[in-house]
Amino acid sequence: MKAEIITIGDEILIGQTIDSNSAWLGENLGLIGVRVSRIVTISDDEEEIRSALNESFSRVDLVLMTGGLGPTQDDITKKTLAGYFNSEFYFNEEVAAEIKAYFNSIGREPLEVNLKQAELPVKCTTILNTRGTASGMWFENDGKVLMSMPGVPYEMKGLMKDEVFKKIQTTFKTPAVYNRTILTIGVGESSIAAQLEQWETKLRDEGLGLAYLPSAGMVRLRVSGVGEDMVSIKKRVDQKITEALAVIGEISYGFDADSLAEIVGKLLKENNQTLSLAESCTGGYISHLITSVAGSSEFYDGSVVTYSYDTKKNWVGVSPESLAKYGAVSKSVVEEMALGVKEKFNTDYGISASGIAGPGGATEDKPVGTVWVGIATPSGVTSHLFTFGKHRLRNIIMTSNAALNILRKELLN
Amino acid sequence: MKAEIITIGDEILIGQTIDSNSAWLGENLGLIGVRVSRIVTISDDEEEIRSALNESFSRVDLVLMTGGLGPTQDDITKKTLAGYFNSEFYFNEEVAAEIKAYFNSIGREPLEVNLKQAELPVKCTTILNTRGTASGMWFENDGKVLMSMPGVPYEMKGLMKDEVFKKIQTTFKTPAVYNRTILTIGVGESSIAAQLEQWETKLRDEGLGLAYLPSAGMVRLRVSGVGEDMVSIKKRVDQKITEALAVIGEISYGFDADSLAEIVGKLLKENNQTLSLAESCTGGYISHLITSVAGSSEFYDGSVVTYSYDTKKNWVGVSPESLAKYGAVSKSVVEEMALGVKEKFNTDYGISASGIAGPGGATEDKPVGTVWVGIATPSGVTSHLFTFGKHRLRNIIMTSNAALNILRKELLN
Repeated sequence: MKAEIITIGDEILIGQTIDSNSAWLGENLGLIGVRVSRIVTISDDEEEIRSALNESFSRVDLVLMTGGLGPTQDDITKKTLAGYFNSEFYFNEEVAAEIKAYFNSIGREPLEVNLKQAELPVKCTTILNTRGTASGMWFENDGKVLMSMPGVPYEMKGLMKDEVFKKIQTTFKTPAVYNRTILTIGVGESSIAAQLEQWETKLRDEGLGLAYLPSAGMVRLRVSGVGEDMVSIKKRVDQKITEALAVIGEISYGFDADSLAEIVGKLLKENNQTLSLAESCTGGYISHLITSVAGSSEFYDGSVVTYSYDTKKNWVGVSPESLAKYGAVSKSVVEEMALGVKEKFNTDYGISASGIAGPGGATEDKPVGTVWVGIATPSGVTSHLFTFGKHRLRNIIMTSNAALNILRKELLN
Repeated sequence: MKAEIITIGDEILIGQTIDSNSAWLGENLGLIGVRVSRIVTISDDEEEIRSALNESFSRVDLVLMTGGLGPTQDDITKKTLAGYFNSEFYFNEEVAAEIKAYFNSIGREPLEVNLKQAELPVKCTTILNTRGTASGMWFENDGKVLMSMPGVPYEMKGLMKDEVFKKIQTTFKTPAVYNRTILTIGVGESSIAAQLEQWETKLRDEGLGLAYLPSAGMVRLRVSGVGEDMVSIKKRVDQKITEALAVIGEISYGFDADSLAEIVGKLLKENNQTLSLAESCTGGYISHLITSVAGSSEFYDGSVVTYSYDTKKNWVGVSPESLAKYGAVSKSVVEEMALGVKEKFNTDYGISASGIAGPGGATEDKPVGTVWVGIATPSGVTSHLFTFGKHRLRNIIMTSNAALNILRKELLN
């Protein structure tokens, strides 16, 4: 069972919005056995919408459309779809009531332009949007289905989860699909591929799929299978996963949607241990990763961002001598930071990071991308030197991931 | 001048990677007068690649292709393109040398699979990739151009900036395009649209374009013009921007790619003032936004993440009485946090945030999404109550943006 996604919006074509909806749809349709075979992004233009629809329906029976349903004048999708399906409009009282209720819940009255969103094509099944004012529209004609939804991710996801996934499953027959992804950190794509070469050849001979997905110091390996029977596919994929893990070892930190911060948090909770941070070049990003996971307060009371010499001295007790002698980006300083924050917050682990995030700040022997990460543990302190690249935000992210990975390995040993 | 983007990668279709390359290409091609009229994402499959190429070339003369050039077995793009353009392969010594140099720079030797990337089609112009091992390939045939690039964003952007933008401009004649985007925060899309209705009608009558781009409490308004003469288009667009600003006032915080953190940083530097933060529910994210901007150390020495009652008391001097009487999510506590951190870091401004990010932690009178933001200024302390939604990460982002906006308004007055 294949489907295509049509995304409408000049904002995506001119690059002011990144299309995150399609990724979410691709992933979640996959879970119900619908494979997204194409994603097409077009502009808010009647002719473009019509031609994209014709092309998609020539290839597949299910098209999901996002965007182009806002209350403002640049959105013409609803009118175009009504024309495409030869439909009149009517005023949907239920939708109007929902729009009024929505505005009341945020303490306002709907404007006329908002109530116009209750005008809907007669020939579609309206999927009520309880999170916003643009309704979902399910058009079904001659075995082909078009589902049109607003582009606001939170609203689109709500419509899909509340009704659309179920409606797709009852309307179409779908095969069993199973994906499992091994998450790794610290080793490059080609090295992993070289280690797994024999395994990969066998996997492909068995009709399973594999993809390498690298990003910022991490590589994900996705193994996938499609067929009639979920139980046997799942068994075959899981068997290959087990074999791969035996080859690659501890560079694997989790599966699928696991985050490194989540894994580290679980290990800390299992050990009944606590963590604090002294962040310099990462500027709070490690703390953000930790606290993005609900429940982190069980092992995390807080941390300090020590962005200057003074805050390093005053807040985590780094010695003026070390700063003067070695500079802030040094083994001595990150070790003192890690020990200092561990002591001040009275935690089991203290993590620190100090580096040249760039673009400024480089010296002759410390180019942009030079980063020291320190870790104080119940049994001592160590530190690790990294040489990342030239890009500030990427350096911040790679440093934060590397720091979490150091802690993960420490917690496993 | 129109172009299409073809993105190759099952990882995008199954939703494990978000296609951020296309947005970047769309934005940056726009700046040289090339409008991206369609983005198509397909799988790593020879037939799919061929049919997508045929379709795109039936509509436009320039196609940019990203992805599918990795060293691992799932990438078949290079072979398919050589076939599509009836080309043999040869071994490019310059590329091989570059691959060896790249691996040496990261302290490794290239594997055989890496050196295979020096095998390239005879019929393309090779665009050297100094950031990775997959070369760019520029195919030109009968007035049509295909530019194939690796999918790693950092490598793709490097190729475009180093050579491809220039090559497009010298190969095609391009019109003048000018976009300018007003960035706003704190007011919804429909309210702004209602305020600007007359202005918008006039703008459209004058042949200019407008789009509303909402996201997490912010709305961007993009005004665009296309034509032969850049000077006159720019003048017309800028005139409309000035008119809009007169209507919407201080909800506008900047233009185009400005970030709120950047704007706030500029204002602090102009005033020669400093900032510190005491973050609870935002968990370091405000600090991350601040330090994402290079040069933030000029006004920012650091901050604390006070994630528990104890750290609120011990690190920024919140009184046990306030915590006991009002709870951590309260006017009293955020005001004490803001005053405390301002004093401890000896800064001109202290910002604090405490709220129920969710999904847990709600009480009867404080549902998930309840957030207090405090600000201590040279002349006193105030606080602001917000009611955001149910989504943890969205609440963290919206709180951080709201906090920066409160500081921005304070700095303007």
